[in-house]
Amino acid sequence: MELKSFAGMDCSVAQCLDAVGDRWSVLIMRDVFLGVSRFDSFHQRLGISRNILQIRLTKLVEAGLLDRVPYCEHPPRFEYRLTDKGRDLWTVITAMRQWGDQYAAPNGPPVVVTHKSCGHHDPLVLTCAHCGEQVGPRDVAATVEAHRGPVSVTKVVRT
Amino acid sequence: MELKSFAGMDCSVAQCLDAVGDRWSVLIMRDVFLGVSRFDSFHQRLGISRNILQIRLTKLVEAGLLDRVPYCEHPPRFEYRLTDKGRDLWTVITAMRQWGDQYAAPNGPPVVVTHKSCGHHDPLVLTCAHCGEQVGPRDVAATVEAHRGPVSVTKVVRT
Repeated sequence: MELKSFAGMDCSVAQCLDAVGDRWSVLIMRDVFLGVSRFDSFHQRLGISRNILQIRLTKLVEAGLLDRVPYCEHPPRFEYRLTDKGRDLWTVITAMRQWGDQYAAPNGPPVVVTHKSCGHHDPLVLTCAHCGEQVGPRDVAATVEAHRGPVSVTKVVRT
Repeated sequence: MELKSFAGMDCSVAQCLDAVGDRWSVLIMRDVFLGVSRFDSFHQRLGISRNILQIRLTKLVEAGLLDRVPYCEHPPRFEYRLTDKGRDLWTVITAMRQWGDQYAAPNGPPVVVTHKSCGHHDPLVLTCAHCGEQVGPRDVAATVEAHRGPVSVTKVVRT
């Protein structure tokens, strides 16, 4: 299934959507963060066709989110490893997981995440890197630059 | 375009993907967080067909992320407002925006977000709600419960 590219859209959310590509690709990245790296393991866990899986993995490599690295010469075998760019998607995947845990996990979270240094599995929250305060949507003002792209037709300041 | 439903998948990331639906829906939610609430405004900003926009908005209402609320009786007019469940997607949208700002915004961030109480626009970072430390993918251990759904075929502890 081909999706419309958002590559030309002057919006960082759209650019992130464009890099990740589609919903299967998000689940591949989720699995990579759980330590999965090999084609057959992705295939077993995701239950999609080998053809679709290969297309998605190739797209993630092309987007610079994964590296395809040989782990065996005879026969030639490859595994997929996170790049820095891919690793930085962890915040996105974590935010999605926590939202799902809160609103769509009637039997409790399927994955329990523990902060290793303190041993707790409290949720992770967004805080300001400058002052350390927890930040929610009402705590920020977003200024859209009026001269930019098609999604920036107005100047909006959210107060 | 119909997408495969992930509703039966025992994974919170998949459940979040299922609720948001598709990539246009993410951009609709992004616009809601920027203060957009009316059909014609979404239509003008996103440049998609009215038919597709209506389908996406209806799905977001059905998923409980937006409320459709009358703002005029004669003629009848409605606007779309965030529910608590929808508002909690802000962390996801913010994480995507920040990733795009870092990796796909060669002219700088199209939207500048300021933390109102301290006045800075440093990035927002994930921290542990218990101890307050900043947390990245190497700082957590994820335990997948072995008895659960199709994506939990193995017990994986990321160290």
